[in-house]
Amino acid sequence: MADTAAAPTVRATVGDSEFDRDTAVTQREPGVYDIDLSAGWTIVNAVNGGYLLAVVGRALAHALPHSDPFTISAHYLTASDPGPAVIRTETVRTGRGLSTGQASLVQFEADGTEVERLRVLASYGDLDALPDDVRTTAKPPELPPVDQCFGADDAPPEQRAVPGSSAIADRLWLKLDPSTLGWALGQPSGKGEMRAWFGLADGRDADPLSLLLAVDALPPTAFEMGLSGWVPTIELTVHVRARPVPGPLRVSITTRNLAGGFLEEDAEVWDAADRLVAQSRQLARARLT
Amino acid sequence: MADTAAAPTVRATVGDSEFDRDTAVTQREPGVYDIDLSAGWTIVNAVNGGYLLAVVGRALAHALPHSDPFTISAHYLTASDPGPAVIRTETVRTGRGLSTGQASLVQFEADGTEVERLRVLASYGDLDALPDDVRTTAKPPELPPVDQCFGADDAPPEQRAVPGSSAIADRLWLKLDPSTLGWALGQPSGKGEMRAWFGLADGRDADPLSLLLAVDALPPTAFEMGLSGWVPTIELTVHVRARPVPGPLRVSITTRNLAGGFLEEDAEVWDAADRLVAQSRQLARARLT
Repeated sequence: MADTAAAPTVRATVGDSEFDRDTAVTQREPGVYDIDLSAGWTIVNAVNGGYLLAVVGRALAHALPHSDPFTISAHYLTASDPGPAVIRTETVRTGRGLSTGQASLVQFEADGTEVERLRVLASYGDLDALPDDVRTTAKPPELPPVDQCFGADDAPPEQRAVPGSSAIADRLWLKLDPSTLGWALGQPSGKGEMRAWFGLADGRDADPLSLLLAVDALPPTAFEMGLSGWVPTIELTVHVRARPVPGPLRVSITTRNLAGGFLEEDAEVWDAADRLVAQSRQLARARLT
Repeated sequence: MADTAAAPTVRATVGDSEFDRDTAVTQREPGVYDIDLSAGWTIVNAVNGGYLLAVVGRALAHALPHSDPFTISAHYLTASDPGPAVIRTETVRTGRGLSTGQASLVQFEADGTEVERLRVLASYGDLDALPDDVRTTAKPPELPPVDQCFGADDAPPEQRAVPGSSAIADRLWLKLDPSTLGWALGQPSGKGEMRAWFGLADGRDADPLSLLLAVDALPPTAFEMGLSGWVPTIELTVHVRARPVPGPLRVSITTRNLAGGFLEEDAEVWDAADRLVAQSRQLARARLT
């Protein structure tokens, strides 16, 4: 995580950055890809679900005739480990404007047993081919300026904001709205809200694939609802609605319904041009206390 | 559609109703099911996407060890026709609390060519096994009493509310909030909102499978945004959060972002006990005028 208030100044580029290297897939045969899941995108010991979705999203972008995930749904089956994985894709349908694909990410146990980690279904298109018309009633989240928001490095070492600080924190530039940071001080607001400025620590600009990471990169809203512990994702669906312009993103996450040990997390991602570039919803487990 | 203001009084039961007969699947071999898609759930000539999801959802409920769709995502590939179809399911993973399955619904052209209609990925569980805890901030939609809302039969014949009135209207008990009915009078509000009381015309109570229909049964929000014409669903994900109690449902649909020829439609379904029983989001195409 950058330790300066401003956006990161080291400018990695799309195609040459930590995110691109760590999501790079190698085609083994048509539709089948190898990937070495990086330990750099873990939270405590778990590989981040948004990173995994970006990895599979990159394989599908290669396998399908269209390159942008318009809508992508992942069901998370078992926890992934850093290390080798194989992604098998299937082209379900190709059309002029949209194509639909399916993918499965698997890993192998020491004895060679194959274990599926996530299954994905997605429809891809070409964001640049869409008309420019926007008729939205959605408003960008209200966030204080970056220098009034807080990252993991802003807390004194003995009181780091993110418990169990994790490798992924070093790869993100994340500045949290202090009004959604009560949980870090032992005073959760009770509201299911989390908001932050978001970027990649090496300064790489956002693109449709990195938006798949952005929707699942903030601390869970469950923390502000007074819950602690792991909130594993069951299913995550992301709609990428526009290609983001360069500059920091704003991410807002909201939970309206925590019930029966499950909650939904809705994310909106806004770009520097005030455009709603992604919407997502996930169903996650929460331990009610 | 019932032509009385009150909820329908003919009491079909879960298991013995139009909805149950028209979503009944017959196992052909393990995991493979036959279905005769009913013409009774069409809008103009298109088979309703929520009905199709309920059909596939029923097949998965049979194929998987759990019976309730906790989260189910469908990607719609081609328009379905009334008539025979085959559903092939795959059990992706079975666990103690959740199991994940995949399904594909296909139809056959006159020359025998197989055409896939929709592909579905879902995680199933047991709603009755969930703890009762509810810590929600979501509020039920504010709807006028049923007798102040309007169904298709409330309009004079020369001015029926739903253009191109369709078979599905006869199977639903749908009473729309007049404040979201401006479009029917040529005065759309411009807001992406649609709200209604919802039930099945034969009085069958709601269950998790019929919730898959309920989320996609109202007129599209696009009508209130001043758009006309067909709004085909690309992808629809439904979270079923609780088993509904008997009694009418309230359904609220919201669109925040119409851009680039696509829009999202978020639905919430509330039961008679003021419980949020389902949340859904779909990505649909809209023709911007």
